[in-house]
Amino acid sequence: MKYINGGVCAAKGFKASGVFCGVKANSSPSKKDLALIYSEIPCSAAGIFTKNQVKAAPVLLDIELIKDGVAQAIVANSKNANACAPEGMENAKRMCSAAAAALNIPAENVMVSSTGVIGQRLNIEAIEKGIPMAVEQLNYDGSDAAANAIMTTDTVKKEFACELEIGGKTVHIGGIAKGSGMIHPNMGTMLCYITTDCAISTPMLKKALLSANSVSFNRISVDGDTSTNDSCIVLANGLAGNAEITSEGADYDAFFEAFVAICTDLARSMAADGEGAKHLITCQVKGACSVAQAETIGKSVIGSALTKSAIFGCDANWGRVLAAMGYSGETFDPEKVNVSFASTVGSVPVCKDGRGLDFDEDLATKILSEKEVIIDIEMTEGDCEATCWGCDLTYDYVRINGDYRT
Amino acid sequence: MKYINGGVCAAKGFKASGVFCGVKANSSPSKKDLALIYSEIPCSAAGIFTKNQVKAAPVLLDIELIKDGVAQAIVANSKNANACAPEGMENAKRMCSAAAAALNIPAENVMVSSTGVIGQRLNIEAIEKGIPMAVEQLNYDGSDAAANAIMTTDTVKKEFACELEIGGKTVHIGGIAKGSGMIHPNMGTMLCYITTDCAISTPMLKKALLSANSVSFNRISVDGDTSTNDSCIVLANGLAGNAEITSEGADYDAFFEAFVAICTDLARSMAADGEGAKHLITCQVKGACSVAQAETIGKSVIGSALTKSAIFGCDANWGRVLAAMGYSGETFDPEKVNVSFASTVGSVPVCKDGRGLDFDEDLATKILSEKEVIIDIEMTEGDCEATCWGCDLTYDYVRINGDYRT
Repeated sequence: MKYINGGVCAAKGFKASGVFCGVKANSSPSKKDLALIYSEIPCSAAGIFTKNQVKAAPVLLDIELIKDGVAQAIVANSKNANACAPEGMENAKRMCSAAAAALNIPAENVMVSSTGVIGQRLNIEAIEKGIPMAVEQLNYDGSDAAANAIMTTDTVKKEFACELEIGGKTVHIGGIAKGSGMIHPNMGTMLCYITTDCAISTPMLKKALLSANSVSFNRISVDGDTSTNDSCIVLANGLAGNAEITSEGADYDAFFEAFVAICTDLARSMAADGEGAKHLITCQVKGACSVAQAETIGKSVIGSALTKSAIFGCDANWGRVLAAMGYSGETFDPEKVNVSFASTVGSVPVCKDGRGLDFDEDLATKILSEKEVIIDIEMTEGDCEATCWGCDLTYDYVRINGDYRT
Repeated sequence: MKYINGGVCAAKGFKASGVFCGVKANSSPSKKDLALIYSEIPCSAAGIFTKNQVKAAPVLLDIELIKDGVAQAIVANSKNANACAPEGMENAKRMCSAAAAALNIPAENVMVSSTGVIGQRLNIEAIEKGIPMAVEQLNYDGSDAAANAIMTTDTVKKEFACELEIGGKTVHIGGIAKGSGMIHPNMGTMLCYITTDCAISTPMLKKALLSANSVSFNRISVDGDTSTNDSCIVLANGLAGNAEITSEGADYDAFFEAFVAICTDLARSMAADGEGAKHLITCQVKGACSVAQAETIGKSVIGSALTKSAIFGCDANWGRVLAAMGYSGETFDPEKVNVSFASTVGSVPVCKDGRGLDFDEDLATKILSEKEVIIDIEMTEGDCEATCWGCDLTYDYVRINGDYRT
């Protein structure tokens, strides 16, 4: 596979746009708030959604809409989550219908997402006015605008794409995502849209999405808060012309390899741009008895407020890593654990057999001052591993979230 | 029951002291680092300890020592956790033996605790020099010194005591605690020592401790990190002269009522003095189907980084409360949930039947600007309730924990 530009428009037959429609009163037109993704033909579709018991209206609607495995467009707004909001379902349906009418496709083929503040009535009138503009601006270079329109407290857009060969045909996969806050592994932890021109059946697309999710989006945490609006939707329109993938085999494997790479890139970029983040924390857990054990321990470490604060302070406080492993719920022998901190400038072992090592504090600080920091855990109990991603806890996280609504 | 002064020395026959011995190199003698609590006669003893898989050496030692249900003294240091540290168990035992020798009591009757940085060798030589000083300074007004000596990042000492009548005798219960960081409900979440002159059997004392813990220490969270060193130890020396409590009944009920009040006061004070905290957050969950459901939901709310940040910003962002309820793992109907914010200046309903209400933002800000903020949740599904305590997430939490070791 080869990385390319184009995001959700890298695949043949996909257009996108992003416009400002004024979802939030008195907000600046310089921040787009309405995104549209459209395929020229109906697609195989799969989606995963938040496990939060409190689900936003568009999530509840999408869960129904995607049951038939077919979709052709996605409309999404930022600035309002349409969760716990008056007339939530009514407004989600109006948003769906407005996009369907403007695109002249059936409403059941339009997926709907919202992200932003919880509990306030969605300004559906602004969205209904904005949708025809978004349809008008649909184009093959529109991924950037769509990626920007779904951003909330994100500081950079998340957009990746790649191409690969399947059955002699060039296949494209691309995605955009928004992350930043209320990010925690509990399946689909963000808004994320992935498009492909690969011909692949809905069941195989769903299988790929579930498998990729478990090792990408499900392994990131910003703040331990699972949102009410998490959605990840993938559309496959088959325009690459490959023989449709309907079962496992070499074609599926090739598709999956590229698909999981894009998912992982999007997941990592969400962790790296977590609210207020100064560091991307990559926690590699090796030598575990099972992947599930490695994953649970890795998630506990990236979720630890104390570990996150230490990384913010470039402080090699590995005791907090051990403590977070210890309260993960997994059983293991602390006296077999080795820990190192690493980054592009080097690596420093800090704990061997569960005991502190003498180490060069200056080197450790230098290593931890890099943007991406790796916490390398060797459990010496088995040969399974998992990698999880998080970010540091900073003053800016507190600032951003101390006054989010205003 | 009546609140009185005296902390762990309020009960007859208990002395305490706190001294500086230099556990940490180059630290200021103005911060005591070694505490001693002593009963003139052996006591019924019960303890609860961290559930963290990674346990500090003194915790592992205490778990063995308390099995016989008898103890007479507690020695504790701050500035070093003696967890994941070289010669951890050896040094914990030396600390125990040094106190036993200086007090001239059997080593198996001395409980040992450490709190502070994880992973560094304990300066046992300093402690061995300090213990005779601590013994020399033991006195009936020593609770304040002991409470100060166990503090780490705590900004205020935690000390409560009360007296009550049991069987015509005046009984006293008092306790000291340190909390502040790495506080999360998973049984015993801190260092806490409680003394009483009540005559009560070890099994009944243990029963009282477990029951009280479940509604006090087990219902607080500062940062979601369960420490390696959590210990709560209670000593009862029987000097009040009441008929020994050996079973349930009126005497046990009276004792328990006062005991749980002291535990709750200590727990609340730990939450209120959580690292960097500007607000104590009290989350009252009512109308739940079970106490367990109410407790799980309450813990999820007080543990939510986003809710904690909102309270720091005095921002009535109740959607985050709903979101935290939703990812608690409990099943409930979001459309039956009502939420209010309250404090001493008033109360403001913000959510009714899972939907946002129009409310007076100025009043809400005023309410949330008070030191203690109440999040009042009515689930309208049953008649069970639970109260949990946490604190807000502040710049100071990040500052304190970004550079804790130095």
